Formats: sequence, C-alpha cells, structure tokens
Amino acid sequence: MADSPTGADRSAAQEEIMEATYRALCDHGYADLTMQAIAAEYGKTTAAIHYHYETKEDLVVAFLEFILDRFIDHVHGVDTTDPEERLELLLDRLLTDREGYREFVVAMLELRAQAPYNDRIREQIQRNDEYVHYLLRTVIADGVAAGVFADVDPEAAARSLMTIVDGARTRFASLDERDALADARRTAAEYVESVLEAE
Amino acid sequence: MADSPTGADRSAAQEEIMEATYRALCDHGYADLTMQAIAAEYGKTTAAIHYHYETKEDLVVAFLEFILDRFIDHVHGVDTTDPEERLELLLDRLLTDREGYREFVVAMLELRAQAPYNDRIREQIQRNDEYVHYLLRTVIADGVAAGVFADVDPEAAARSLMTIVDGARTRFASLDERDALADARRTAAEYVESVLEAE
Repeated sequence: MADSPTGADRSAAQEEIMEATYRALCDHGYADLTMQAIAAEYGKTTAAIHYHYETKEDLVVAFLEFILDRFIDHVHGVDTTDPEERLELLLDRLLTDREGYREFVVAMLELRAQAPYNDRIREQIQRNDEYVHYLLRTVIADGVAAGVFADVDPEAAARSLMTIVDGARTRFASLDERDALADARRTAAEYVESVLEAE
Repeated sequence: MADSPTGADRSAAQEEIMEATYRALCDHGYADLTMQAIAAEYGKTTAAIHYHYETKEDLVVAFLEFILDRFIDHVHGVDTTDPEERLELLLDRLLTDREGYREFVVAMLELRAQAPYNDRIREQIQRNDEYVHYLLRTVIADGVAAGVFADVDPEAAARSLMTIVDGARTRFASLDERDALADARRTAAEYVESVLEAE
C-alpha cells in the first residue's frame, strides 16, 4: 500500500490508475473524460479500472483525494519552520505555472463547475479546500504568535489568500491569461506585505 | 431598438429573449440549457428564437453581451465622481449577493469552464472582463491622479481586484460557500485600504 497523507490507502495499481486519470484529464478535459481514455493511458482494459472504481464518480472522487495527497507530499518536503518562508513557499506552490499545468487547471475548472450538481464531487472539493485553508491558517497563526505577522484573524486571512488562488486559476483557465498565476502571486505578495506584515 | 452601452442593438423581442435566457439559465444551469427551456420562459416557439439567434452559441454570445450591458447600465447610474466612493460602489456591485444570484453565478461558472473549448464564448467573456477591468483601472487612475490613492500601477491593481472577484464567484458557486462574496468584499476592502490608500 502506498502511504497517503489523507489516509487514503492506494495499491500500486490504484496509484497507476490515478496517474493515468491525470494524463487523460489533461488530454481530454473533464467533459470528454471516459473510462476508455483512462484505460488507454493505463495500458489495460476498462474492466481493470472498474475492478478498483465501480463508477466514474468513484474514480473522480478518488482522484481529487489523490491530487490533495500529491500537494501535501510536496509541501511536507519543505523543511523550514519560519512562518514567513513557509507561507511564501505555500503560495509559490499554489500559484506557479509548470509544464502542462494549464490543461490540468482547465479540467479542474470543469470539475468545479460540476460541483453544484454533484454532492460527492463538491464534498471532496470542499475537503481539499479545507485542507489547504488549514495549512495557510496554521502558518499565519504561527506567524501571529511569533510576532512576525500583525494581529490578524488567521482564519479570515487564509480565506483571502484562497480567494486570490481560486481567482487566478479561474482566470488562467477561462481567459487564457498566461500571466494570471504570476499576477495573482504578486497580489498575494502585496496582501502578505500590506496586511500580514503591516506595522 | 433598445439602447445598449456596448453598442449591441437589441429589438424589444431580443430583449425579451435575453430575459428569458437569464431565467432559463438560473433554473436549469448551462449544461441543461435548451432552446425549448428558453422558449418556455419566452412564451413563444423555438422558431421565434431561432429567427433572432441561429444557433445556441449565437444566443449565448449575445447573452454575455446583454449581461455586460446590464452591469454597465447599473454602474452608469452611480452619480459620484469621487474615486474612492466610485471604487467602493463598483466593488459592492461586483461582490454583493442578491435574490437568485447564486443560480446565475453557477451558470456563469459553467460557461467559464466551457470557454477553453469555445473561441467565441471565450472571446466574449474576455471582452466582458476587459470592460470591467477598464472601469476599475480608470477609477484607480483617477484616484492616483487626484492624490487620494498611492502611486500604484492602475492596470495591475485593477487586475488584483478582478482576481479577488473571480475567486469569490468560483468559491460561491462551487463550494456552496454562502459567505464567499462577503468574505471577498472584505478582502477587496483590505486591499484598497492597505495597498491603494497606503500612506
């Protein structure tokens, strides 16, 4: 079993199916995501996928958990305890373009647009959001306690940063605004500097 | 012909079809928006709609222009020339919940998720975005010129506020976060106070 920060136990086969789903989503988007497309990426039959995930919905919910695990894995690797540095690194990870990232953000926007119509998808998106919010809130609270940040409400400040992140992703995907992530990284930096680090 | 700030000439019939489209979108969402549903709201046949809008795409592009006109109509009614007040009123309009608004924002998120796959829809969404950006940029530039705002780049500051607005709408629709707009209004106020009105 693969270790997972969210506590999801995934077998090696399930890890491979999740990786195949990632590639299929980037290639086809969510609207055109089929079990066939995932099977083609996986290199096995759709039956081999259905053995692990009965419905497409089961698979999509598991996939959302998988990308949260990947995010957590990445940020757990960060070995600084300095609140300002940790917050910068979290924001860098949330707002940096990378190879093939736009295709992924496009597929995620489709999933978010689906959320109002599908309780299980919305609930998993909410859990992912809540986890990232928790990471931001914790590092802000640490900074307030250490006196490096102003006496802000960590809960509200984290929500402001999440709003900036979500706005950036929506603009990056839907407006084909290549600089949307870099622009939002600057906005987040202004927010940190002017609100959190205010005298 | 109805007067339109964007220069779109709409007949009375076309105005009625746009109103019917608004109601149908709120009731059904975009994925389930059919000419039949719009015709039912319009109280006429689908042929009566096709007479004005040949395809669903034509209708959706016209609809996006229609909602931009409605927004512009609303903000043109604001009769203050004070930059700080004008900016507050613009942000209020962009970030205030109102009767039936979530259903509309849900449908707009579906449209935005469609944008990467449809050039005409994306281009109209970009035009709408560009117009709102222009309004924000202008009022910020006025405030900088009048010395009530700090010496910021109005272009970048307007983009930061647009990012906050888009993040709020994505969260409002996809996370069922009832306070997302109010939270973002507070974030925008913090941004204005700390960045634009900084000493």
